Amino acid sequence: MRRVVIETRGMEKAGHKHFMAKEIHEQPQTVADVLAVFLDGDRVVPPTAYDFAATDRIQMVACGTGFIACMVAKYWFEALARLPVEVDIASEYRYREGPIGPDTSALFLSQSGETADTLAALRYAKGQARAILSIVNVPESSIARESDVTWPITAGVEVGVASTKAFVNQLVILLALAIHAGVQRGQIDAAREAELVAGLRRLPGLLSLALAIEDDCIALTHRLAEATDILFLGRGPMYPLAHEGALKLKEISYIHAEAYASGELKHGPIALVDRSLPVVVFAPTDALFDKTVSNMQEVMAREGQVLLVTDAAGAEQASEGVWDVLVMPTVEPIFAPILYALPAQLLAYHTAVHKGTDVDQPRNLAKSVTVE
Amino acid sequence: MRRVVIETRGMEKAGHKHFMAKEIHEQPQTVADVLAVFLDGDRVVPPTAYDFAATDRIQMVACGTGFIACMVAKYWFEALARLPVEVDIASEYRYREGPIGPDTSALFLSQSGETADTLAALRYAKGQARAILSIVNVPESSIARESDVTWPITAGVEVGVASTKAFVNQLVILLALAIHAGVQRGQIDAAREAELVAGLRRLPGLLSLALAIEDDCIALTHRLAEATDILFLGRGPMYPLAHEGALKLKEISYIHAEAYASGELKHGPIALVDRSLPVVVFAPTDALFDKTVSNMQEVMAREGQVLLVTDAAGAEQASEGVWDVLVMPTVEPIFAPILYALPAQLLAYHTAVHKGTDVDQPRNLAKSVTVE
Repeated sequence: MRRVVIETRGMEKAGHKHFMAKEIHEQPQTVADVLAVFLDGDRVVPPTAYDFAATDRIQMVACGTGFIACMVAKYWFEALARLPVEVDIASEYRYREGPIGPDTSALFLSQSGETADTLAALRYAKGQARAILSIVNVPESSIARESDVTWPITAGVEVGVASTKAFVNQLVILLALAIHAGVQRGQIDAAREAELVAGLRRLPGLLSLALAIEDDCIALTHRLAEATDILFLGRGPMYPLAHEGALKLKEISYIHAEAYASGELKHGPIALVDRSLPVVVFAPTDALFDKTVSNMQEVMAREGQVLLVTDAAGAEQASEGVWDVLVMPTVEPIFAPILYALPAQLLAYHTAVHKGTDVDQPRNLAKSVTVE
Repeated sequence: MRRVVIETRGMEKAGHKHFMAKEIHEQPQTVADVLAVFLDGDRVVPPTAYDFAATDRIQMVACGTGFIACMVAKYWFEALARLPVEVDIASEYRYREGPIGPDTSALFLSQSGETADTLAALRYAKGQARAILSIVNVPESSIARESDVTWPITAGVEVGVASTKAFVNQLVILLALAIHAGVQRGQIDAAREAELVAGLRRLPGLLSLALAIEDDCIALTHRLAEATDILFLGRGPMYPLAHEGALKLKEISYIHAEAYASGELKHGPIALVDRSLPVVVFAPTDALFDKTVSNMQEVMAREGQVLLVTDAAGAEQASEGVWDVLVMPTVEPIFAPILYALPAQLLAYHTAVHKGTDVDQPRNLAKSVTVE
């Protein structure tokens, strides 16, 4: 296995115990950095132009955390721009050799820009798709060089193997592009664009504010650290966030966490629920809140231990009988996936710290996967 | 919660300990039954006609096991008919309100035909999609009645809560329809259709032959029954089968099993692997076999216990160092997902029997989910 060597000598943890903690705390700043690149006044102006009105579909391809960012982006592009999105795991997409329509754009996400399966998937799509787009953190990488249009993640060097700030910046870019696509496709007028851009500009502040949940996370992770298995649930754009929470926890705490769409719970996984199973529920108050609460109550009726991650209104409405609640700042639902990345990260991080694992270099994992 | 009452008085287990075992053993016959409905000589002739040449995409929607059948069908329709397929979980699809093109057909799968989320998703698509198609086991059900075209699963009454014969018949129908679509779209000529139909006609015999692995399953499930966590891996059409194996095991043995696309292993879940973790790998010898074996070796290098489910050639080539091998009959790769449903079922069934759980009526689960 070839590993990409990242030069960390001279890099400081800035008072944090691990690079991952430092990178979590940098996110208000890295989000501000990437917004400066994608916003101009009250408009989204991507640093490289692409006409989303001239494409009828986006095929997104990535691995690991990048795949989860694509799952969120599907909701955004379909809701804001009425542009259908299909999302695929790179190692599956490259070998399936599925049909690609001539008006489909293919978008590849990779922190390193060297992920082997993603690069192979890009090469499969080349010459078939209308254009090859990419979002990478390393502008001189193979994926960036082989794309027609590439956008920079602008997250700075990420040392922790479990991606944090690169993931959040991917989300911010995907949301900015979805807004931009909505404008280009006549789904969003100038007033709504200005409103959405104002929402984007509030994100760094909201992320800073949300970091205040860290003490609560520390207080409850000793109980998560005792679990051998944990479920994460969410609906709509919170379903991918449940995946992010589960993946992070697997990666750095070695606890077997798994994500489910809340509505799928009763089609199988609810059989697992008993008093030994913590169930983390991501549920800001939005149109799907009541449905998610109803799934959560099914879990509690079977003695599952629910950790509800919600906002003040959600906590007010649905805290009865839960094991614990993490109260997040209130945010317009469209921005919630970006904010809720923080509890996904912090729960995993502090659980791992409590267990004493090697957070920045977890067993069996490499930062960039340049083999198939 | 409203439950659909199935009249089981007078139904016999035919010498089996559970209805699930009886239904597993019925599959050679139920597959023969459904083939009799969909085949005519050396051609596929679905009992209700639909012109797949007049549609440019299929949106498939289902829950639980039906969703897994759709994941397999995506490979078939894209490979055999060059017809793009998108697959969605019903509880996600109905609320996302994604765009549906006028030439997209929407296909809904449900054993009962009454699954609440699937029915709601159907009603969302109605009037937008080119046509509403469905595959259900109960012809007089709501989903069948509200469809433009409906095909019968023809599996007879299924009593076990964990679907077996209905799942396998869904797969057979989806493959038959994919072949039919390939013919209609000019991707499959008469000679290839005859070959594929001959392959379909061999399935009942192959399923009977494959039931011979049951003794081997019994011999090894005492070790699976001791595990608290199990991973299932597969690539391509074996990736959904890994989901089926994991779901079945969750449902009836209450062991936390999770499926991963083999290529995603190194993007996170490999951190879980140690000597306490059984990893079940579905890998018939096909174009992806070497890639899967390479992922399997990564698991073994980290002391994971691999149970390889493959054919004689695969066992010959890749058994070194594995914990155990289940040797399946050799089959053309396109038919493998149907055959490999058997080990998915048998491993779960005998693990549950070993643990002494209530196989036919597992805790917390209902046969038909008619609530949201």
